[in-house]
Amino acid sequence: MPVRALWFSDGRLHLIDQRALPQRTRVLRLSRVEEVADAIRGMAVRGAPSIGVAAAYGMVLASRQPHRRPGPSAKLLGATRPTAFDLFVGIEAVRSAWASGRDALEAANAYRDRIVGECHRIGEAGAPLFRRRPKVLTHCNAGALATVEWGTALAPLRVARERGAPIFVWVDETRPLLQGSRLTAWELREEGIPHAVIADNAAGHFMRAGEVDAVIVGADRIARNGDFANKIGTYEKAVVAHENGIPFYVAAPWSTFDAHRATGRQIPVEERAPDEVLEVQGRPLAPRGSAARNPAFDVTPHEYVDAFVTPGGVVRPSGLARALRRAVP
Amino acid sequence: MPVRALWFSDGRLHLIDQRALPQRTRVLRLSRVEEVADAIRGMAVRGAPSIGVAAAYGMVLASRQPHRRPGPSAKLLGATRPTAFDLFVGIEAVRSAWASGRDALEAANAYRDRIVGECHRIGEAGAPLFRRRPKVLTHCNAGALATVEWGTALAPLRVARERGAPIFVWVDETRPLLQGSRLTAWELREEGIPHAVIADNAAGHFMRAGEVDAVIVGADRIARNGDFANKIGTYEKAVVAHENGIPFYVAAPWSTFDAHRATGRQIPVEERAPDEVLEVQGRPLAPRGSAARNPAFDVTPHEYVDAFVTPGGVVRPSGLARALRRAVP
Repeated sequence: MPVRALWFSDGRLHLIDQRALPQRTRVLRLSRVEEVADAIRGMAVRGAPSIGVAAAYGMVLASRQPHRRPGPSAKLLGATRPTAFDLFVGIEAVRSAWASGRDALEAANAYRDRIVGECHRIGEAGAPLFRRRPKVLTHCNAGALATVEWGTALAPLRVARERGAPIFVWVDETRPLLQGSRLTAWELREEGIPHAVIADNAAGHFMRAGEVDAVIVGADRIARNGDFANKIGTYEKAVVAHENGIPFYVAAPWSTFDAHRATGRQIPVEERAPDEVLEVQGRPLAPRGSAARNPAFDVTPHEYVDAFVTPGGVVRPSGLARALRRAVP
Repeated sequence: MPVRALWFSDGRLHLIDQRALPQRTRVLRLSRVEEVADAIRGMAVRGAPSIGVAAAYGMVLASRQPHRRPGPSAKLLGATRPTAFDLFVGIEAVRSAWASGRDALEAANAYRDRIVGECHRIGEAGAPLFRRRPKVLTHCNAGALATVEWGTALAPLRVARERGAPIFVWVDETRPLLQGSRLTAWELREEGIPHAVIADNAAGHFMRAGEVDAVIVGADRIARNGDFANKIGTYEKAVVAHENGIPFYVAAPWSTFDAHRATGRQIPVEERAPDEVLEVQGRPLAPRGSAARNPAFDVTPHEYVDAFVTPGGVVRPSGLARALRRAVP
């Protein structure tokens, strides 16, 4: 069965708790916007497009709570995580409906349908890239869990495989929170797609050995010039892929493109608690009292991107500004 | 107190069990060569120079066991791990003494003294590199634990600090076995050297942000042209440092230089059990039955090395062949 990250029913937002995977498939049922904000901040739901849709439904819940108003509710949700642009797009889609007296749930459903539809088109648009390049490395999770359904980076691989390409996925484990080994490996296993988990450190080794045909990742925010933020480590993979002549692709729905930021320098990068680096599943890895730094994202300059896989097709960085003017007016 | 990785007393080889650090400081007491082989294979002792010295003392224990002969004992120890060249140098230092009737313990002690002395000279030679570049990133553990005393990569940082440089160390955690967060952070903490542990993925982010002045690592085997094997992930760090104009140094005693291999293509790379990637401290990280690949090392081409810090001084890759002819006849 295809994975779905979240859904709205019985007046509540249902989320697969991504912190519990792959050991347990636990579903959270949220009925207040405050709970949704906590779920986003604590990464029970993560992945920029999923965050956006979760926040949209968070606004729906807010609209049904006594004394809640559109502006402050949007502010509450917008303060949870700073980097993913989709968060603000999803919030705004419902805030504007609510503030102007339209149906909030209808607006949220429409936003979800838009994201799912765009991911589907990303899959169709990107699949041909991998027909002759079936050994593909990905970083973090840009699958259905990150995008409600289909995925961004994983969508073209799913479609290419359905069309007969012998897809094999190198899964970066993606420290510190292991979205690769916990989530991407889980999705691929659910669907029977061949893959191998590797330490993030091993990606370069396999690239240099000729065992990686292409790299595809998702994004949390893409500036107008194509510089983009994504899970920490993406920048390193992009540089090493470039050095080895391996195509590097970024897949994202339009909600990830921030037309107001000219370059990556203007993208805020979240720094999270050091414990995420110093512990795994609550177990200490380093000496007690060690210091750590934990940026959750890095920004990769557009020079390292061969193409963006968008709902409107495959776009080179040089053509991005034009494609954006058409798609995100 | 300065850290010491291993010592020989009361007829036994004493090793700090590096698998138990930093939670516990457990000392193994080994009296048979078979136990030493297991300790090396299981990585109770690791780091190329320490492996070499441990193997030298393993040969001493073999020489005292009934029915043990030099050749097969050397073979037993040599089969434990394929990449570290020091292993074979350490074994041979004692095998030749034993086979020709000289005192095995004396030969092992002399080998240890040689390695410790060389690390001390590496510290002296390399320290000036960091006087004006005090924010230094290192990968894996190339400290005292890896080299008996002093360290290779860490030795110049220790000496530079004693001379007043405001050294700060970025510690790559070094998945899968976390020698950075477990061992390097422990050593630095024992000595009060400021540092921060980071996910391996974050190194590029801090390099690009201008927060890394230089990179220094140890090595497991260095070919004649300067291509070298080191802990998996080293290649990525070298490429990204190069891309950012950050000097990249490799520190090693002469026992790590393999004059018989012309290039890195001829260096054997060990692949270890997938469990090291799929688990941390016995806890599963990925779905049950996930596949994984686990190369323990990668090979970095000499183009990415600014200089080797050797017991004979700081040597550019172009000068390496000449320096080797003088030092390793």
